[in-house]
Amino acid sequence: MNSAAISRFPVPDIDSLPEDVRARIEAVADKAGFIPNIFLTLARRPEEFRAFFAYHDTLMDKETPGLSKAEREMIVVTTSARNQCQYCVIAHGAILRIRAGNPLIADQLAANYRKADISARQRAMLDYALKVSRHAETVDEADYQQLHAQGFDDEDIWDIGAISAFFGLSNRIVNMSSMRTNDEFYLMGRVPREK
Amino acid sequence: MNSAAISRFPVPDIDSLPEDVRARIEAVADKAGFIPNIFLTLARRPEEFRAFFAYHDTLMDKETPGLSKAEREMIVVTTSARNQCQYCVIAHGAILRIRAGNPLIADQLAANYRKADISARQRAMLDYALKVSRHAETVDEADYQQLHAQGFDDEDIWDIGAISAFFGLSNRIVNMSSMRTNDEFYLMGRVPREK
Amino acid sequence: MNSAAISRFPVPDIDSLPEDVRARIEAVADKAGFIPNIFLTLARRPEEFRAFFAYHDTLMDKETPGLSKAEREMIVVTTSARNQCQYCVIAHGAILRIRAGNPLIADQLAANYRKADISARQRAMLDYALKVSRHAETVDEADYQQLHAQGFDDEDIWDIGAISAFFGLSNRIVNMSSMRTNDEFYLMGRVPREK
Amino acid sequence: MNSAAISRFPVPDIDSLPEDVRARIEAVADKAGFIPNIFLTLARRPEEFRAFFAYHDTLMDKETPGLSKAEREMIVVTTSARNQCQYCVIAHGAILRIRAGNPLIADQLAANYRKADISARQRAMLDYALKVSRHAETVDEADYQQLHAQGFDDEDIWDIGAISAFFGLSNRIVNMSSMRTNDEFYLMGRVPREK
Amino acid sequence: MNSAAISRFPVPDIDSLPEDVRARIEAVADKAGFIPNIFLTLARRPEEFRAFFAYHDTLMDKETPGLSKAEREMIVVTTSARNQCQYCVIAHGAILRIRAGNPLIADQLAANYRKADISARQRAMLDYALKVSRHAETVDEADYQQLHAQGFDDEDIWDIGAISAFFGLSNRIVNMSSMRTNDEFYLMGRVPREK
Amino acid sequence: MNSAAISRFPVPDIDSLPEDVRARIEAVADKAGFIPNIFLTLARRPEEFRAFFAYHDTLMDKETPGLSKAEREMIVVTTSARNQCQYCVIAHGAILRIRAGNPLIADQLAANYRKADISARQRAMLDYALKVSRHAETVDEADYQQLHAQGFDDEDIWDIGAISAFFGLSNRIVNMSSMRTNDEFYLMGRVPREK
Repeated sequence: MNSAAISRFPVPDIDSLPEDVRARIEAVADKAGFIPNIFLTLARRPEEFRAFFAYHDTLMDKETPGLSKAEREMIVVTTSARNQCQYCVIAHGAILRIRAGNPLIADQLAANYRKADISARQRAMLDYALKVSRHAETVDEADYQQLHAQGFDDEDIWDIGAISAFFGLSNRIVNMSSMRTNDEFYLMGRVPREK
Repeated sequence: MNSAAISRFPVPDIDSLPEDVRARIEAVADKAGFIPNIFLTLARRPEEFRAFFAYHDTLMDKETPGLSKAEREMIVVTTSARNQCQYCVIAHGAILRIRAGNPLIADQLAANYRKADISARQRAMLDYALKVSRHAETVDEADYQQLHAQGFDDEDIWDIGAISAFFGLSNRIVNMSSMRTNDEFYLMGRVPREK
Repeated sequence: MNSAAISRFPVPDIDSLPEDVRARIEAVADKAGFIPNIFLTLARRPEEFRAFFAYHDTLMDKETPGLSKAEREMIVVTTSARNQCQYCVIAHGAILRIRAGNPLIADQLAANYRKADISARQRAMLDYALKVSRHAETVDEADYQQLHAQGFDDEDIWDIGAISAFFGLSNRIVNMSSMRTNDEFYLMGRVPREK
Repeated sequence: MNSAAISRFPVPDIDSLPEDVRARIEAVADKAGFIPNIFLTLARRPEEFRAFFAYHDTLMDKETPGLSKAEREMIVVTTSARNQCQYCVIAHGAILRIRAGNPLIADQLAANYRKADISARQRAMLDYALKVSRHAETVDEADYQQLHAQGFDDEDIWDIGAISAFFGLSNRIVNMSSMRTNDEFYLMGRVPREK
Repeated sequence: MNSAAISRFPVPDIDSLPEDVRARIEAVADKAGFIPNIFLTLARRPEEFRAFFAYHDTLMDKETPGLSKAEREMIVVTTSARNQCQYCVIAHGAILRIRAGNPLIADQLAANYRKADISARQRAMLDYALKVSRHAETVDEADYQQLHAQGFDDEDIWDIGAISAFFGLSNRIVNMSSMRTNDEFYLMGRVPREK
Repeated sequence: MNSAAISRFPVPDIDSLPEDVRARIEAVADKAGFIPNIFLTLARRPEEFRAFFAYHDTLMDKETPGLSKAEREMIVVTTSARNQCQYCVIAHGAILRIRAGNPLIADQLAANYRKADISARQRAMLDYALKVSRHAETVDEADYQQLHAQGFDDEDIWDIGAISAFFGLSNRIVNMSSMRTNDEFYLMGRVPREK
């Protein structure tokens, strides 16, 4: 049933890739045990690969007092669900389950974040992330005030908006290239690891 | 993290329920090992409970040459995802995984059915189900012709549309009552059963 | 000009129907003087017929302190108009005129309920009914509070939402089957009965 | 229940109006037996009154081989229903019933024109009128070709679009001024005139 | 690159036009140095030409304490941009630049009026104009109160709404006729006039 | 009238910036004669600055047989207009005028690209760019076939989609930070350079 295709674009031979691109792919493969298709899909254009992951890493591989790594993934799952990006919902759903140590939260957010087990602060965060994703032209100071009232500062608000904006880009790349979701993501973080 | 609430409405004592309602709930509890919250939420109004499940059963507990039980669940998951009904996506996602014997299909359909591992025939089925769900006022003979071309007959088309319409009702009841999804559904059908 | 068709699906011979279905149809024919097409359209599937009318009757043939029969029909007409369901707008418009004793209210609600001759309490009722009909995923406690402020209790709010949800189902069945509106409905309740 | 108000703006004393405006109002009152509220609402601004009715008359009081007066009213009812203009739907529904000699057509078009008793030619006319009303920015040569195929010429197509555009203006004026619909319109054209 | 066409409809010989229509066109040509295409496009139907410009003039060639001529043009540019009317955005953008003595404001409003160099009062004016343009069915007393709070009186509010409604008509006529924007408008008001 | 603000976030002292960021800013200032606000707004976060411009440059500073630099800017202006991004419409409108040697094209595309002076091939390019921008979840092989029919190959299609996706990110960053458009952009490319 499952086609082996990675996307509708050809995937380069890994050995032919520039050294830094290859190294990044090997590192993720070592850590995850498989190569997420986003790496293979973007590798054919090394400049875009580098820019994409540089942008991704500076927004997502960061933990601040205002925004945990799990909360950053909550933004990705919630906005990607509304953009109907299969890869982002399922792959980042897996990462969210692991980072939050919660096997339920990703499916809840993907289906309807308003009914998920989240705090009022996280609800405000996701309301704003979705506003940036779908109606950014209407963002104004009232949005900042609502987020300030929940304890977010201006840098947190930039982070929330920038993550939403960056994954809006990612969602579109995935959908335009019909990028397939790796089978490994579906079950990750759903069952406690054996000891 | 998980509230124990079933919905924002009170749940009746099972022993106080009419005999037929109680019997139905006990039967599903015996089979599933838990009571899905939709039964407890609707039980407080026995007449609505009976009508809801009678409608549900006649559409869903049926297998025809044109529409398998798994395909019926595909319609539920796809339309409920667009209606942002958490309970229906997750609970019927579980049922779909089991009926299809496919641990991936529910998450694929919920995120973006256009990129799921489905046949052209199933794609036409889901396009029509979503049209009934979101723009039923525009359904016309051209829709029937497209479905006939895929081998569906008029009774299949009624089934597809009626399932979409019925779960549109269900999605709204769930969202208006803030019905919680049982934790048991999330993992069902994702890992092979032990022998 | 008027085709005699009832819907795009065949209508069974009334004598061939199960006894309870036939009895229900004969009862409505006796009372109304004609058979509304919804009965003939659904009769071909007796199980769906029974579930549909059981659901309908428990929501609509009820008069509570919080919600009169006329107000229930106001919900039907207003939500069906936005779903562009010709049968429901015209048939339930007729019933509303009769139940409200008001020849103008149905046409007002169908065109723009915000400009109709209704109370603030009825306006809140219809705002909520439309929210359930079109954006149920966003219903939250603030909606309940607004309705409580108008004197509705939780059971009234369930009724309003359930009527909206049920007729959302009905609207979709009508549109997907191209069900025709009986000519008799158009004029009902518009002119005072002769004595 | 019915407020006597005509709109949220004051209505001038008819005797104080410029002669041409007063004459027009008296003529319509003589013919109709009452003064439609659109005349009283606009009379306070004689220049707008004159421009509005001049535009109206040149588009609507015309009968061409391609577009009858009844068909012109069909455009008004169908587009005004989607714009949720109560006055236009009900008042022009009355005029349509009279001009078409058909007591059913207005309610059918207002609810869902796709299910009304109209010809394929009229369906194409209304599809185009709604496109101009709601997505005029996408009109292109393909629209003209579809209408040519139904026998409309370029002048007919201008008429269809201009009627849709003009009543889009009218719909907005009515809604922004909360103009009330005269009670007389509701029943007009529904019952055969006595001889 | 630039087609010389004025619209997809033929343009009459100016000498063949009724005297008043010809005089109006010659007056605007004398003043502007060219004939704006809206005059040539509408001239083929003198009655519509007269009604259109009578309506236009009474709304736009007026300066009241509550609404300057420049503010009237701000309404045109902002609503026409959302209606995607090329002629109206560019031609009235030119007029706005001249009337406001501001070379930037038209482009700001056309792109996103919420980020333009305008006062809170003008922002409220444009919010209302867009509401009339896109959701007039929801206008109610709360809108009037918000505008009153900004110092607008009821006559100003009628003006704002009527300008929005009238240019909604104009936008649709332009788009349905594929009316071309005169090249002269693009640069008008962008550079200080030489002395 | 023009506030001097660059965005709602503070702008770092250029001398405090990392060497590469500072060098990039000085280079653009030398070339343009001013510093476009996007550089100053992003400079406060050097990692995001670097990723953003690396992504930008690889997509935009490229000329291929299938897609000229001017055509790349056409994509930016058209999609940014629908996203209501003032900075992107006006700044890239300026660049487009210069690269295309056409003072009219940017305003035409921003207002309604369907009525602009473009080729059928460019129209297909912009239709696809907007589909990626607004409904990427529906992109499928039929889109590729339509673009192939216009002479675009798969790499061109990736470029079109990626530019649309990248500027979707940019549009959101601009709107969420209320980034101001530099005054210099408005007039660029509108008047022939003096020799």
